[in-house]
Amino acid sequence: MKKRPPNGQNPRASNLNLTTHPYDIDAADSDKFHEECGVFGIIGSPDAAANTVLGLHALQHRGQEAAGIVTHDAGQFFSHRSLGHVGDNFNSEAVISSLPGDAALGHNRYATTGETVLRNVQPLFAELQSGGFAIGHNGNLTNAGTLRSQLVQRGCIFQSTMDSEVIIHLIATSTYHDLLDRMIDALRSVVGAYSLVAMTDDKLIGVRDPMGVRPLILGQLDGAPILTSETCALDIIGAEFVREIDPGEIIVCGHGGIDEIESINPFPAAAARPCIFEYVYFSRPDSITNDRSIYAVRKAIGTYLAQESAVAVDVVIPVPDSGTPAAMGYAEEAGVPFELGIIRNHYVGRTFIEPSQNIRNFGVKLKHNANRAEIEGRRVVLVDDSIVRGTTSKKIVQMVRDAGALEVHMRIASPPTANPCFYGIDTPSREELFAANFDLDAMAREIGVDSLAFISINGLYRAVGGADRDIGVPQFCDACFTGEYPVALVDLAQGRAPAQLSLLAEHT
Amino acid sequence: MKKRPPNGQNPRASNLNLTTHPYDIDAADSDKFHEECGVFGIIGSPDAAANTVLGLHALQHRGQEAAGIVTHDAGQFFSHRSLGHVGDNFNSEAVISSLPGDAALGHNRYATTGETVLRNVQPLFAELQSGGFAIGHNGNLTNAGTLRSQLVQRGCIFQSTMDSEVIIHLIATSTYHDLLDRMIDALRSVVGAYSLVAMTDDKLIGVRDPMGVRPLILGQLDGAPILTSETCALDIIGAEFVREIDPGEIIVCGHGGIDEIESINPFPAAAARPCIFEYVYFSRPDSITNDRSIYAVRKAIGTYLAQESAVAVDVVIPVPDSGTPAAMGYAEEAGVPFELGIIRNHYVGRTFIEPSQNIRNFGVKLKHNANRAEIEGRRVVLVDDSIVRGTTSKKIVQMVRDAGALEVHMRIASPPTANPCFYGIDTPSREELFAANFDLDAMAREIGVDSLAFISINGLYRAVGGADRDIGVPQFCDACFTGEYPVALVDLAQGRAPAQLSLLAEHT
Amino acid sequence: MKKRPPNGQNPRASNLNLTTHPYDIDAADSDKFHEECGVFGIIGSPDAAANTVLGLHALQHRGQEAAGIVTHDAGQFFSHRSLGHVGDNFNSEAVISSLPGDAALGHNRYATTGETVLRNVQPLFAELQSGGFAIGHNGNLTNAGTLRSQLVQRGCIFQSTMDSEVIIHLIATSTYHDLLDRMIDALRSVVGAYSLVAMTDDKLIGVRDPMGVRPLILGQLDGAPILTSETCALDIIGAEFVREIDPGEIIVCGHGGIDEIESINPFPAAAARPCIFEYVYFSRPDSITNDRSIYAVRKAIGTYLAQESAVAVDVVIPVPDSGTPAAMGYAEEAGVPFELGIIRNHYVGRTFIEPSQNIRNFGVKLKHNANRAEIEGRRVVLVDDSIVRGTTSKKIVQMVRDAGALEVHMRIASPPTANPCFYGIDTPSREELFAANFDLDAMAREIGVDSLAFISINGLYRAVGGADRDIGVPQFCDACFTGEYPVALVDLAQGRAPAQLSLLAEHT
Amino acid sequence: MKKRPPNGQNPRASNLNLTTHPYDIDAADSDKFHEECGVFGIIGSPDAAANTVLGLHALQHRGQEAAGIVTHDAGQFFSHRSLGHVGDNFNSEAVISSLPGDAALGHNRYATTGETVLRNVQPLFAELQSGGFAIGHNGNLTNAGTLRSQLVQRGCIFQSTMDSEVIIHLIATSTYHDLLDRMIDALRSVVGAYSLVAMTDDKLIGVRDPMGVRPLILGQLDGAPILTSETCALDIIGAEFVREIDPGEIIVCGHGGIDEIESINPFPAAAARPCIFEYVYFSRPDSITNDRSIYAVRKAIGTYLAQESAVAVDVVIPVPDSGTPAAMGYAEEAGVPFELGIIRNHYVGRTFIEPSQNIRNFGVKLKHNANRAEIEGRRVVLVDDSIVRGTTSKKIVQMVRDAGALEVHMRIASPPTANPCFYGIDTPSREELFAANFDLDAMAREIGVDSLAFISINGLYRAVGGADRDIGVPQFCDACFTGEYPVALVDLAQGRAPAQLSLLAEHT
Repeated sequence: MKKRPPNGQNPRASNLNLTTHPYDIDAADSDKFHEECGVFGIIGSPDAAANTVLGLHALQHRGQEAAGIVTHDAGQFFSHRSLGHVGDNFNSEAVISSLPGDAALGHNRYATTGETVLRNVQPLFAELQSGGFAIGHNGNLTNAGTLRSQLVQRGCIFQSTMDSEVIIHLIATSTYHDLLDRMIDALRSVVGAYSLVAMTDDKLIGVRDPMGVRPLILGQLDGAPILTSETCALDIIGAEFVREIDPGEIIVCGHGGIDEIESINPFPAAAARPCIFEYVYFSRPDSITNDRSIYAVRKAIGTYLAQESAVAVDVVIPVPDSGTPAAMGYAEEAGVPFELGIIRNHYVGRTFIEPSQNIRNFGVKLKHNANRAEIEGRRVVLVDDSIVRGTTSKKIVQMVRDAGALEVHMRIASPPTANPCFYGIDTPSREELFAANFDLDAMAREIGVDSLAFISINGLYRAVGGADRDIGVPQFCDACFTGEYPVALVDLAQGRAPAQLSLLAEHT
Repeated sequence: MKKRPPNGQNPRASNLNLTTHPYDIDAADSDKFHEECGVFGIIGSPDAAANTVLGLHALQHRGQEAAGIVTHDAGQFFSHRSLGHVGDNFNSEAVISSLPGDAALGHNRYATTGETVLRNVQPLFAELQSGGFAIGHNGNLTNAGTLRSQLVQRGCIFQSTMDSEVIIHLIATSTYHDLLDRMIDALRSVVGAYSLVAMTDDKLIGVRDPMGVRPLILGQLDGAPILTSETCALDIIGAEFVREIDPGEIIVCGHGGIDEIESINPFPAAAARPCIFEYVYFSRPDSITNDRSIYAVRKAIGTYLAQESAVAVDVVIPVPDSGTPAAMGYAEEAGVPFELGIIRNHYVGRTFIEPSQNIRNFGVKLKHNANRAEIEGRRVVLVDDSIVRGTTSKKIVQMVRDAGALEVHMRIASPPTANPCFYGIDTPSREELFAANFDLDAMAREIGVDSLAFISINGLYRAVGGADRDIGVPQFCDACFTGEYPVALVDLAQGRAPAQLSLLAEHT
Repeated sequence: MKKRPPNGQNPRASNLNLTTHPYDIDAADSDKFHEECGVFGIIGSPDAAANTVLGLHALQHRGQEAAGIVTHDAGQFFSHRSLGHVGDNFNSEAVISSLPGDAALGHNRYATTGETVLRNVQPLFAELQSGGFAIGHNGNLTNAGTLRSQLVQRGCIFQSTMDSEVIIHLIATSTYHDLLDRMIDALRSVVGAYSLVAMTDDKLIGVRDPMGVRPLILGQLDGAPILTSETCALDIIGAEFVREIDPGEIIVCGHGGIDEIESINPFPAAAARPCIFEYVYFSRPDSITNDRSIYAVRKAIGTYLAQESAVAVDVVIPVPDSGTPAAMGYAEEAGVPFELGIIRNHYVGRTFIEPSQNIRNFGVKLKHNANRAEIEGRRVVLVDDSIVRGTTSKKIVQMVRDAGALEVHMRIASPPTANPCFYGIDTPSREELFAANFDLDAMAREIGVDSLAFISINGLYRAVGGADRDIGVPQFCDACFTGEYPVALVDLAQGRAPAQLSLLAEHT
Repeated sequence: MKKRPPNGQNPRASNLNLTTHPYDIDAADSDKFHEECGVFGIIGSPDAAANTVLGLHALQHRGQEAAGIVTHDAGQFFSHRSLGHVGDNFNSEAVISSLPGDAALGHNRYATTGETVLRNVQPLFAELQSGGFAIGHNGNLTNAGTLRSQLVQRGCIFQSTMDSEVIIHLIATSTYHDLLDRMIDALRSVVGAYSLVAMTDDKLIGVRDPMGVRPLILGQLDGAPILTSETCALDIIGAEFVREIDPGEIIVCGHGGIDEIESINPFPAAAARPCIFEYVYFSRPDSITNDRSIYAVRKAIGTYLAQESAVAVDVVIPVPDSGTPAAMGYAEEAGVPFELGIIRNHYVGRTFIEPSQNIRNFGVKLKHNANRAEIEGRRVVLVDDSIVRGTTSKKIVQMVRDAGALEVHMRIASPPTANPCFYGIDTPSREELFAANFDLDAMAREIGVDSLAFISINGLYRAVGGADRDIGVPQFCDACFTGEYPVALVDLAQGRAPAQLSLLAEHT
């Protein structure tokens, strides 16, 4: 059992304050849920590393704290990892040429399990009996703590605090002979929501968890197979979308190219439950899922939102940038002018000193400014994609009132997020979730709006998939809204913290 | 006379490639004109440095390569300068507390005259006979080379390559006694477009050139006077806008506060010629000039643009973000749906390696992606604020065609920019300016659009100021469109390069 | 099997050239054998981390490329690792306070097995079933490759390329229950020359290999036990020397202090074979071994050297600094004046550009200069501790001749080093060893001296231990001189590279 | 007038603590006088920059905080400056190739006048009417403050806080036409001790002050003239010593080579007064002055010291490394064995945390350790070159006593340093000088020795120059010993701080 040092301070936490959030999210965005990872793998491409860098750049929104790439060339593996953005750390000739070979696996991460020290930056690499093995992973294993404890008991030594390392040890200690059989054996022990991509010296292997909670798609560039999280990572390199990986599917790509990929379905059939929040916020608006652009879905959410809870105003104003498409759909449906009433400053630094004379709405103003000319003397409805803690919303409302709005209403393009996610999304605990602690009226009072409305869960389902939520077998994972967790929370049920596998306080 | 080393290489240039553009603008933005400077000064505020940091942060778009702040406290001056963004380099407790005092002067710069080595980061500081003197400057002196040569003749030693240093030497060697008289004496020798703010141990002094080409405004925070470039720098700290500085006005602020400022008009009266391009692109959309928001003016430009050159299309798509307001105005006037058909990636790195297999439109894709679902099978009109070299436009058009557009038209919210600016704006030489080398048809062919139109000069004047251009006494400086330069180009007329005052190749 | 990329280049090596030797040894010292590690552990001291930093600083000569410290406090372990010198990277308040607790284990390293990427910096840490376990190690396991291959076969995953990791996996997978039994079980599988110090949450454990090839001593500071490599690490913190750890001894220290330490001898008895080169070069002159200072031993070697091979000269000049004590002993015995005829520049940078006009003896002059006034017109004997490749000796001789010496003779305070070391010392391969490729006359000609002599092996033994070498059971390990390797070279016998356990080319 | 901020703190000083001493001298050396500068210039050499880098490396002991090089090529000047050691900052291919041309001027500095911000790193460069002009300077102007004040009055703007800038402004504003006449005009206004080297686009010009207080020599490499501070800078590049520059001589070197140099003597004749402390401590032991090596002079000082104040002991021990030659001379003369009883750790970091339990002689042990085997049970005499504050001496004596010495005596190879230097040497104020505050007995008690003796001033003169001090016209500047200042202290006489020209607190 780990205890804190006697002085009541937790030096580990304080160390890590120095190092874990060097690329911290600014005030406004910090009040969002955070997707934790993006993956990109390619095999059989002469520019594997460069393409992977670009793919990770397109997926930067899925994980901004660290990135890593492993490549394979002629029997040897090569790796580069770095804290910070892909565009700042993987763009040099020197880095690209240090990553030779025609197969590459890359990963962006936002820290959840495992502090962001360099040894926790994925892809994870291990030299197994069968040879080198790299793995990158988007999601979370809900029984990682339980499995880890069993593995340590058997003599396994963990070097990171990432749940992905559990999978590697399960593969290494599997009694099967063939690597693929070992992987299947390992994955059968695992419970969780995950999309993973692995690389050996001749294969690129993708796996999506049995319910397909996290996304994973197949693309190709001149015949070279690509496994990645979103279509925008294909667009940037001019690659083609082929299809989504099915829930529970293992897909094996080799040097035979896109025409010789192999598909395996080793798990019992289960109803698909893809994450509905990908549509609300996580995915990039230009990504395409289910044949529709995320942008179009978000506009449709705005349309339904206007139908459900229109209010008499003079202008519809998005909270930029995530609220913009829904605000456009809302304005069109409501027949009210849409204006950019809040301007975003794209130069966002890290932490600013607050001047002592107490500037109103200090934090939010670092990134947003009211466009007074569009607000003054008008009744305003603000449209945002979601409210997490409510802190930023409150400041934005005040800023809009200070700019002279007569009335301020708020409409939210998702139902109240009253439940934490345990499937690879960084969410506050229930105690901090605004909607878990206040009812609608109290939320409106707290934020300071004249009215507040969220889209209904059925409205959201209709906008996303065209049909109401099937109460018996919901079409999506919507646990953050409904509290119905489709994948068992094994560690949590045993009293383990769901994502707490730290061992050594290290800072470099 | 400076000659290049015999091997034909210019080691100075190559040195400076290493150091002058560490924070380079990405592919798309590099095809814009660049405002070169933002200034922010405040006197009599207990949080002078912190407020100046925030003001510079709000003005980051006016100069992204370097920033500096000088403060004054109890008879001593304090300074911090840094390459890079304000939010990355001036946000620490350590930096703020190293800048004590209730008066501060800050400056953002984009490099034009003078390489961006640290000694060229403004504000410039000198210890004059009268005491310390700091100066920050937005604009360009068109007779700096001539003056500098005369000053060197008289024994003055220049330590930077900035034209602002000319002003300091003129002040230092003026035969007047009082500092203000010396300043006026100095400014009477100077020709150019400039807004400058100076700080002594008890005053903050603003000057706008006789024609008021570059902007300068007066604000106040709890009575403390502020001199800055745009209103958005007031908004971020909750300060109030007071008025614009008049062309040719010198304004002297002291510890008496906003009620005791002094105004001097030492120059012969001249018709005002503020830069019209501030409305088109330079200023932030939430800044307010002449009682109208820049955003509203840009929408109005879009309206006139639609009136002048509407075309039958299915969708209006802005080139983000600078073309968005004009596109909204255009769409509304033309009655065509407005859609975000191009999505911007906000994580922009520096230089990427281009993979060898020749990705189509590589550079532009680092920042933009087509939102295919809104483009495919439609006739599209793209709206942008300006075209400089045409290189980015061409790539964006191709990207939109690749996404399946049936037709691609382009409408530009400014007249063709056929002439370089010598008044503090970074523009390419005439040889590189698209509109200086092609007629409209040839431009359309080069860019690859089905039709191309620019707003007329009168349309622009009407959108900005409500009236047609007065041919005799134009209301604005529009030299980049018309080639009529209101401020004499003294150095240029004498065969001097207008902004070439380098002396020593230095890199640190 | 690892193959190189097809283009014939080894990108891994080229990567690592950039990163593995940032603190490279300068020209002169690079022609020495290099001790690879220093260890320092303490338990029960209120300033455990600070004392360990100082201890490592005193041991800096034993490993200059990287250092690491792990501490233990209240059930949790804390770690800091860094490339570079202890005095540059562990001296800040921030680092010390990030390493709380009263037990600490530190390690300096010079890279041999394992590239110096940060994950290869010791101490190694693992969370075993029994709790946290840290280990630091001086020496080399000669069967590490064989053991590692067996462990990977059983599913163990290695995260570093250090041979010490083999020991951790052996402990983790041992079938014994108690940690100490597991350690003994593990060490019985291991062959090699090693002194290791391990730390658990309540113990500090030292082990010296059965022949005691590498040094390990016990000290105490106010009752807190210390395990370290040399007495100079005790001196710097004012600690007392207690005794040497016996060959094959395991010593267990706890919070009971120096009076309650436990000693275990789990290995079959073996004749001690401590490394004789520690006396010649590795240890600091102020360290004390066997009750004599290393300095005194080196002077004695000089004395015997003069007896064996005196030559008629005017002055004795040491090659500084390692040849100085032997030169003093030689001069005294020979009755010839001792002068500092070569002056050392203590400011040594990394790599210098060689000017093209071919400066004579460029490399050596960066660090040494002839003191011409003491050399010109004289017959000189230079005394050095050892010759490895001969390259530096040749340049020094030439520099001394250029300064006007009439004759130059050289005397070496060790026998010819004709054999590589596999026991934790960085030595060139036999192909590069001067004495393995030339006989004495050829060496003299190659170096350019008028005469050359090495001390005899018996002379060295007498100076160090008072008696001739016992041919049947030599008192020391002298394999580098004699080629008689006391510890079996297991991996080498099986055709494995003795210290080649790399897996992944990584650079951060 | 500059006042401190009201809170009593001097933020400027605290800023500068962060930046001015990044390469601080360790505990022991900090109790020495510090030479402030080394210069090296060469003209007509194809490898001018590389040779200058090597020359500065050899002169690193004369200034360790910063270095700069300016070169000239084909009408353009090139510059690189850096804080830190030459070997760490000027050794890359990139830096060397950024400094083209066959003429170069380099400078090492230790900070005295002017904080070590980068703009204060010499050589200073200015573009005069006559073209580019670079200047590097060893020494101090004693009327710099007075001159600066006059120059500011006349409109000159200073950009650095270095006294050398005064010279540049005097040249720029001189009414003579020719550059050399301007220089002579300027130097006639100047009072001080200085050796300066200047570079124009076709000349390299050396000047030594009328009394020749600071050293300056002429050398040549393949006919290319070199002006530098010590002969060791010639040795490293294989250049030849030609002669010393005479006091008051101006020497002009051009592309005609060593045979066409021009010599001018523009000052009234004055008796030479070279600094005697160069012999005691500043110069490198292998440098040659007046045909004798500094090493030989120091041994001779030891010889006279033994004659003057021998004491019955068992062993003579140098305080390394500066006391070593004198200790050797002393031991030989006294007939007592010389032993290295104190061992120096060459790995010296910056600041260490002192463990709380109060390690005896903590600071000194970071760099020195007693070699107990040579001390225990013996009567010891320690020989050092000088005592400044006495703090280090006290700790070393205690360390030697702790190692078991029966008696500890100390002998110093210079007279008591009771007076500060104002001629370019960093010395404490009189309040901090040990010898200015205690008599001999009190000093001995304070340091804790059984006896203490300094060499007499006549003893020193005899060792250095062969004759007693000529009381009427002393042969050397010995103000630090005698208080007789040969060069007038102009600023000091007017109540100005002698070396206090700061204006702006800047940190980058």
